[in-house]
Amino acid sequence: MAYSAEKLNEEKVFKDPVHRYIHVRDRAIWDLVGTKEFQRLRRIKQLGTTYLTFHGAEHSRFNHSLGVYEIVRRIVDTVFAGRPEWNEEERLLSLCAALLHDLGHGPFSHSFEKVFDLDHENFTRAIILGDTEVNKVLTRISADFPKKVADVIAKTYEDKLVVSLISSQIDADRMDYLQRDAYFTGVSYGHFDMERILRVMRPKEDQVVFKQSGMHAVEDYIMSRYQMYWQVYFHPVTRSAEVILTKILHRAKHLHEQGYSFKHMPLHFYSLFEEKVTLEDYLKLDEGVFLYYFQIWQEEEDEVLKDLCCRFINRNLFKYVEFDPAREYKKLAKLSQLFVEAGIDPEYYLVVDSSSDLPYDFYRPGEEEERLPIHLQMKNGELRELSRESEIVDAISGKRRTDHKLYYPADFVSGSEEIRKLLEL
Amino acid sequence: MAYSAEKLNEEKVFKDPVHRYIHVRDRAIWDLVGTKEFQRLRRIKQLGTTYLTFHGAEHSRFNHSLGVYEIVRRIVDTVFAGRPEWNEEERLLSLCAALLHDLGHGPFSHSFEKVFDLDHENFTRAIILGDTEVNKVLTRISADFPKKVADVIAKTYEDKLVVSLISSQIDADRMDYLQRDAYFTGVSYGHFDMERILRVMRPKEDQVVFKQSGMHAVEDYIMSRYQMYWQVYFHPVTRSAEVILTKILHRAKHLHEQGYSFKHMPLHFYSLFEEKVTLEDYLKLDEGVFLYYFQIWQEEEDEVLKDLCCRFINRNLFKYVEFDPAREYKKLAKLSQLFVEAGIDPEYYLVVDSSSDLPYDFYRPGEEEERLPIHLQMKNGELRELSRESEIVDAISGKRRTDHKLYYPADFVSGSEEIRKLLEL
Amino acid sequence: MAYSAEKLNEEKVFKDPVHRYIHVRDRAIWDLVGTKEFQRLRRIKQLGTTYLTFHGAEHSRFNHSLGVYEIVRRIVDTVFAGRPEWNEEERLLSLCAALLHDLGHGPFSHSFEKVFDLDHENFTRAIILGDTEVNKVLTRISADFPKKVADVIAKTYEDKLVVSLISSQIDADRMDYLQRDAYFTGVSYGHFDMERILRVMRPKEDQVVFKQSGMHAVEDYIMSRYQMYWQVYFHPVTRSAEVILTKILHRAKHLHEQGYSFKHMPLHFYSLFEEKVTLEDYLKLDEGVFLYYFQIWQEEEDEVLKDLCCRFINRNLFKYVEFDPAREYKKLAKLSQLFVEAGIDPEYYLVVDSSSDLPYDFYRPGEEEERLPIHLQMKNGELRELSRESEIVDAISGKRRTDHKLYYPADFVSGSEEIRKLLEL
Amino acid sequence: MAYSAEKLNEEKVFKDPVHRYIHVRDRAIWDLVGTKEFQRLRRIKQLGTTYLTFHGAEHSRFNHSLGVYEIVRRIVDTVFAGRPEWNEEERLLSLCAALLHDLGHGPFSHSFEKVFDLDHENFTRAIILGDTEVNKVLTRISADFPKKVADVIAKTYEDKLVVSLISSQIDADRMDYLQRDAYFTGVSYGHFDMERILRVMRPKEDQVVFKQSGMHAVEDYIMSRYQMYWQVYFHPVTRSAEVILTKILHRAKHLHEQGYSFKHMPLHFYSLFEEKVTLEDYLKLDEGVFLYYFQIWQEEEDEVLKDLCCRFINRNLFKYVEFDPAREYKKLAKLSQLFVEAGIDPEYYLVVDSSSDLPYDFYRPGEEEERLPIHLQMKNGELRELSRESEIVDAISGKRRTDHKLYYPADFVSGSEEIRKLLEL
Repeated sequence: MAYSAEKLNEEKVFKDPVHRYIHVRDRAIWDLVGTKEFQRLRRIKQLGTTYLTFHGAEHSRFNHSLGVYEIVRRIVDTVFAGRPEWNEEERLLSLCAALLHDLGHGPFSHSFEKVFDLDHENFTRAIILGDTEVNKVLTRISADFPKKVADVIAKTYEDKLVVSLISSQIDADRMDYLQRDAYFTGVSYGHFDMERILRVMRPKEDQVVFKQSGMHAVEDYIMSRYQMYWQVYFHPVTRSAEVILTKILHRAKHLHEQGYSFKHMPLHFYSLFEEKVTLEDYLKLDEGVFLYYFQIWQEEEDEVLKDLCCRFINRNLFKYVEFDPAREYKKLAKLSQLFVEAGIDPEYYLVVDSSSDLPYDFYRPGEEEERLPIHLQMKNGELRELSRESEIVDAISGKRRTDHKLYYPADFVSGSEEIRKLLEL
Repeated sequence: MAYSAEKLNEEKVFKDPVHRYIHVRDRAIWDLVGTKEFQRLRRIKQLGTTYLTFHGAEHSRFNHSLGVYEIVRRIVDTVFAGRPEWNEEERLLSLCAALLHDLGHGPFSHSFEKVFDLDHENFTRAIILGDTEVNKVLTRISADFPKKVADVIAKTYEDKLVVSLISSQIDADRMDYLQRDAYFTGVSYGHFDMERILRVMRPKEDQVVFKQSGMHAVEDYIMSRYQMYWQVYFHPVTRSAEVILTKILHRAKHLHEQGYSFKHMPLHFYSLFEEKVTLEDYLKLDEGVFLYYFQIWQEEEDEVLKDLCCRFINRNLFKYVEFDPAREYKKLAKLSQLFVEAGIDPEYYLVVDSSSDLPYDFYRPGEEEERLPIHLQMKNGELRELSRESEIVDAISGKRRTDHKLYYPADFVSGSEEIRKLLEL
Repeated sequence: MAYSAEKLNEEKVFKDPVHRYIHVRDRAIWDLVGTKEFQRLRRIKQLGTTYLTFHGAEHSRFNHSLGVYEIVRRIVDTVFAGRPEWNEEERLLSLCAALLHDLGHGPFSHSFEKVFDLDHENFTRAIILGDTEVNKVLTRISADFPKKVADVIAKTYEDKLVVSLISSQIDADRMDYLQRDAYFTGVSYGHFDMERILRVMRPKEDQVVFKQSGMHAVEDYIMSRYQMYWQVYFHPVTRSAEVILTKILHRAKHLHEQGYSFKHMPLHFYSLFEEKVTLEDYLKLDEGVFLYYFQIWQEEEDEVLKDLCCRFINRNLFKYVEFDPAREYKKLAKLSQLFVEAGIDPEYYLVVDSSSDLPYDFYRPGEEEERLPIHLQMKNGELRELSRESEIVDAISGKRRTDHKLYYPADFVSGSEEIRKLLEL
Repeated sequence: MAYSAEKLNEEKVFKDPVHRYIHVRDRAIWDLVGTKEFQRLRRIKQLGTTYLTFHGAEHSRFNHSLGVYEIVRRIVDTVFAGRPEWNEEERLLSLCAALLHDLGHGPFSHSFEKVFDLDHENFTRAIILGDTEVNKVLTRISADFPKKVADVIAKTYEDKLVVSLISSQIDADRMDYLQRDAYFTGVSYGHFDMERILRVMRPKEDQVVFKQSGMHAVEDYIMSRYQMYWQVYFHPVTRSAEVILTKILHRAKHLHEQGYSFKHMPLHFYSLFEEKVTLEDYLKLDEGVFLYYFQIWQEEEDEVLKDLCCRFINRNLFKYVEFDPAREYKKLAKLSQLFVEAGIDPEYYLVVDSSSDLPYDFYRPGEEEERLPIHLQMKNGELRELSRESEIVDAISGKRRTDHKLYYPADFVSGSEEIRKLLEL
C-alpha cells in the first residue's frame, strides 16, 4: 500500500483539554509527531513570556500544533469530504501543513527573531526541506511532497483553498490558539462556537466561505480575537518581560562583539551572535537552553547582563507608564539624560514598547494583502464580505490601535525625585 | 503596623484557570510569591514526565502552590473565621505553610530523589530556615515564624488542626492537585464539588471534620482520587519516561564515578554525584537545567548515556508488558541473559517498575500513621469515621493495589525471535 | 431579635447550575421564597415561547429570581460591605427587591400584556402591597417596608444606588439572565467574567461605577448582551410562536365579545376579556392554565381558534420572509387581498412582526431616560462614560436595529401560485 | 426514492446544552419530531417533582428523547458504521426506537402509574401501533416498521444488539439522562467521559461490548450513576413531593368513587378513575393539565384534597424522619392512633416511603434478567464481565440498598407533644 494511504491498525488518540481528543488514523501523521523536530516544540512555549502574567499559560507549541491539525482534520474529514469543490487529494497535504506550520519557531521567538534578525518561517521551510526526520517522512509520501507542504505554509501553494485552511482571517491556526490560550490562561474571552463555524464552512474555488446562517458565530470569533489581543497577548506585564528578554539578548550579543570573556562560554549562542546559524545549530535551541544561560549569567561580571538576567529569572520586572511618542519625545530625552547622570544605561533601562510592533492584525479586510477577507455565502449563492453584513464587525474593522508604554526599573529610580516626577509617580 | 497584619492597598489577584481567581490581601503573602525561591517553582513541572503522555500537563508547581494557598485562604477566611474552635492567630501561618509546602521540590523529583537519595521535604525545611529570601520575609513576621512554618509542613507543629489543612486524607494540597491535574491533562476524572466540601468543613480540636450532609461530596472526592491515580499518575507511558530518566541519572553518576570524561562538564551535577549538595547548589537546579544536559549528552561518547538521552528528549520511550514478579522471576533472569548476549545492558534496558513504589496512598484509615482518617460529624455532634458511613468508601478502603510492568526498548529487541517470544510480542 | 436581623440557624443553600450555590442566611428571604406568590413563578417560563426554538429553555422565572437575589447578595455582602459609600441598612431592602423584582409577571407575558393591555410592573407592585403572603412577610420587617421594596422595583426609591443594583445598564437582573439563558439554551454567547465585574463595582453616590481595570469585562458583557438579543431573544422562530400565541388570545377575546359559546367555559379568562382583572384572578394565571385552555380549544367549533391552538400545541408554526414595510406595503396589501380571496383571514394569518416591538435596549447612553449610562472610575478618581473609553462599545452604542418579518402559514398557501410568487418562495 | 432512505436537503440541527448539537439528516426522524405525540413530551418533565428540590430540573422528556436519539446516532454513524458485525439495515430502526422510547410516559408518571395501575410501556406501544401521527410516519417506512420499533422498545426484538443500544446496563438512555439531569440540576456528579465510552463500544453478536482500554471510563459511568441515584433521584425532599402527589390522586379517585361532587368536573380524570383509559384520553394528559386541576382543587370543599393540593402547588411539603419498618412498626401503629385521635387521617398524612419502590437498579450483573451485564473485550478477543476486572465495580455490584422514611405534615403535629416525642423531634 502506498505510504500516503497507510492507516494505523487502530486509531490513536491524544487527550486534549481543548478539543477533548485528537484523532490520528494516518501513518504519516503519526510518524511526523514522533520526529525529533516535532518533539522539540514541547520545549517552546506557545505564549513566550505570558506565563509571567498568567501563570497557567505554560503550554507549548506542541500542544497548539496538534490542535491545529485536529481542526483541519475535522474540516476535511467531516465537512469537506465528498463535496465537489474539494479535492480529496489535498487531504493529507492539508493535514501535514497544519501539523507543521509552526515547526521553525525558536525560543521566545518574538524577541529572539528581532534581536538576531531571524525569521521562523524560513526555518520552518528549512526543516521541511532539509536533512531532517520530518523531511524523511514527507519524502516517503512523494518526492515533491516536502516542497508542497512548505509552499502551503509559505502561502505560495497554487491551491489557495488549502492555504486558506491554515492562513486566513479565520483559519484553523487562530481558531486553535484563541481557544487554547483562553483555556490555559483561564480568561473568559476566547470562547466561540467553533463547532458551528466548522459546520458552515464551505470550499469555494480558492477560499473557504461561510454560510450566512453562521454569521453570528463568526462575529463572536472576531470579538474573541479582539479581546484576546488586548487582554492577553498585549498585556503590559508580558511586554515588560519581553523588553527585558530582548535587552538580555542584545547585551549578550554586544558583550560578545566587544570581546567580553564569559565565565561560561555560551556555546549555543556563538552562531547567533555571528549571524551564521545553521539548521543544526538552530534545532538545538529551545527555551530550556535559554533559561539555562540566563540562570548562569546571573553570576556574570557584567552588571547589566547580570541584573537583567536576575530580573527575568526571578520575575522582578520593569514598571511602566503610558507614553505618547508624538507629544512626549522631549520628556523621554530628558529622562534619558537623567538616567545617564544616575549611572543607569537608558539603552537597557528606559524602553518604549509599542504594541503595534507585535504581530497584531485583527480583522481588516483589504488592508493586508496576505489575509483574505471573510466571505459569507448568502442563501442565493452570492458572496458578501463579512463587514458589509455585520454591523459589529464593520464598527471595528480597519481600525488599527497602537499602545505605547515606557518601561523602567522602579527600584533603580526610586531615589531620584526628578525622575519620579517626570514619570508622574 | 506589624508586618504580619499589613495589607496591600488594593487586593491583588492572579487569574487562575482552576479557582478562577487567587486573592491576595496580605503583604507577607505577596512578598513570598516574589521571592526567587518561590519563582523557581515555575521551572519545575507539577507532574514531572506526565506531559509526555498527556500533552496538556505542562503546568508547574508554581501554579499548584498558589492553588493550595487559595483553598486554605477560602477555608480560613470564609468557613473557619469567627468559629470558636478556630484560632485566628494561626491564619497567616496556615496561609504561608500552604503556599510554601512544595518549596523544596527538585526537578523531576520522583526519579531525582531516588537516584541521589535526597528528600525534598528536607530542602523545603532548609529553604525556609536557611539564608534565603523566603526566610527573610518570614522572619519579618516574627523571629520564630520560619520554624513554625517548617513545622507545619513537617507535620510536627503542635496545633494539628493547622497541619491537617495541608496534610490529611482530604487536604488543600490534594484538593488542588486533583482538580488542577484533571484540568491540564483534560481528563474527565478529578472533578468533585469542592465548594460543598469547603462549606461542610468544621474545625474540631486537632482535626478538620465534615458535616454529615456533605458525605457524598467527600465520597466523590475519594473516587476522583482513585481514578486520577490509576488513569493519570500511574499511567504506564509516564512510568516509561520515568524509568528512562532514572537510568540517565544513574548512568551519569556511574560514569562520573568511573572517571569518565564528559565532553561538557556537568557542573550542576558534581555535588549531586558526590552526595554533598548544598542549599545553594540545590536552588540552581530546575528542569530547564536538566533538559539542557540531557540535550548535550545526546552527543556524548558513552553509548548508553547518549541513547537514553536521545530517547528521553525525542520521546522514543520503552515499551512494556505486564509482569508478575512472584511467578515470572525465572523469565526475567532468562531475558537478562539474552539481553547480555545481544549486547544490551539489562541494568539499563530491562527494568521492572512497580507502581507501589510510587507515592500511592488512596484512602486507608488506620494504615498510615501520618494520615488521619476522615471523620464525619453527625447531626447529634458525634464523630464517625467515613468508611463506616459510606458503603463505597468502605468497599475500597484499605486495599493496596500494585501494578508491575517490565520495560524494554522495542527497537533493540525486534531482531531477536527468542526475546520477542519471551515477551509474548 | 428584630425580624429584619433574624438569621437562620444554619445557612440554607439552593443548588444552582449558574451560580453553583445560592446562599440564604436571612430568615425574611427564606420566608419570601416559601410564599405562594413566589412559588407561582415556577409555573412561568423565563423565556416564554423560546423553548419551541431552543428546547433547553424550559427554565422558570423562579430560577432567575433566585439568581438575581444571589448576585445582589454577593455584591452587598462581599464587595460593598464596609465601604463608607454603602449604607448597610439598605442591605435587606436590596435583597428583597432583587428577589421580588419579577413577581408580577404573567404567563407568556410579552404577548399576554399586549393583548390584554396589562403591565406586569403594576402587578408586581400590587402583590407586594396587597393582601398576600409576600406582603405579610415584608410587613414583619417594618410597616413601610413593602412600599420601599415596591419603590425600588419601580425605580422611584430615593436611594438610586439601591435602584441601580437591579435596574441599570449593567445590573444583577441582566447579569443573571444573560448567563442563565445562555446556560439553558446551550448557546455559546452570554458568557462574561461576572466575578471580575463584581470585584470592580463600587458604590458612588447614586450609582454603581466600575473601576477602569475591569473595563474589558464590562465590554465583554455588552457584547454578550448584543449577541443574546439577536441570536436568542429575537430569534425568528420564537417570534413565530409568539405571533400565534397573540392571535389565539385575540381570537378568544374577540369570540367572547361576539357572544360565542365556548364548549368549555374559559373561566380563568373572563375577567381578562372584560378587562377587570383582580389581583386574586391574576394570581391564578400561569402557563399551565394557558396551555390547558389551548389544548381543549383544539376541539372548539371556531375554525380559527381551533387551528391556531393546534399549531401552538403541536408546534406547527408560521413560516416567515424578510419584509420591508417602507418599500413593500403594496405587496402586503396585495397579499391580504389574495388571502381573503383564498378564504384565509389575513388578520390572523398574515402578520408583520418587528423586533423593535420587543423590549430591546442594548447599551445606548443618554437615549433612555430610565437607564443610566455605565461609568468607569479612572485611577485618579474621575468618572468617564464607558463609550468614551471603549472603542467597541462606542462603535455599537446608540444604534437601534429593527428587524421586520412577515409571518404566514406555509401549509395554507402552498396551493396558490400567486401567493407563493409574491412571497418569493 | 424510498422514504426510509430520504435525506433532508440540508442537515438540521437542534442546539442542545448537553451534546452541543443534535443532528438530523433523515426525513423520517424529522417527521417524527414534528408529530403531536412527540411534541407532547415537551409538557412532561423528565424528572417529575425533582424541580421542587433542584430548581433547575425543569427540563422535559422531549429534551431527553432527542438526546438519546443523538447518542445512538453517533454510535451507529461513527462507531459501528462499516463494521461487519453491524447490520446497516438496522440503523433507522435504532434511531427511531431511541427517539420514541419514552413516548408513552404520562404526567408525573411514577406516582401516576402507581395510583391508576397503568404502565407507560403499554402506552408507548399503543401510540406506535395505534391511529397516531407517529404511526403514520413509521408506516411510510414499511408496513411492519411500527411493530419493529415497538418490539425494540419492549426488548422483544430478535436482534438483541439493537435492543441493547437503548436498554442495557450502559445504554444511550442512561448515558443521556445521567448527563442531562446533572446539567440541569447543576450537581457535580453525573459526568463521565462519554466520548471515550462511545469510541470503545463494539458490536458483538447480540450485545455491545467495550474494549478493555475504556474500562475506567465505564467504571466512572457506574460511579456517576450511583451518585445520581442517591443524590438526586432518591432525594428525600423530592420523595416528599411524590408522596403528596400520590395522595392527591388517591384522594380524588376515592372521592369520585364515593360520589363526591366536584366544584369543577375533572373531565380529564374520569376515565382514569374508572380505569378505562383510551389512547385518545391518555394523549390529552400532561403536567399542565394536572397542575391545572391541582390549582382549582385548592378551592374544593373536601379538606384533604384541598390541603394536599395547596401543599403541592405552594411547595409546603411533608417533613420526614428515618424509619426502620422491621424495628419500628409498633411505633408506626402508635403514631397512626395518635393521628386519628388528633383528627388527622393517617392514610394521607403518615406515609412510609421506601426508595426501593423506585426504579432503582444500579449495576447488578446476573440479578436482573432483563439487563445484560457489561462485558469487556480483552486484547486477545476474550470477553470478561466488568466486575471481574474492576475492583470498584466489584465492590458495589449486587448490593441493594433500601432507604425508608416516614413522612408527615410538621405544621399539623406541632401541637402534640406525644407525637413530636415519638417522631423524636
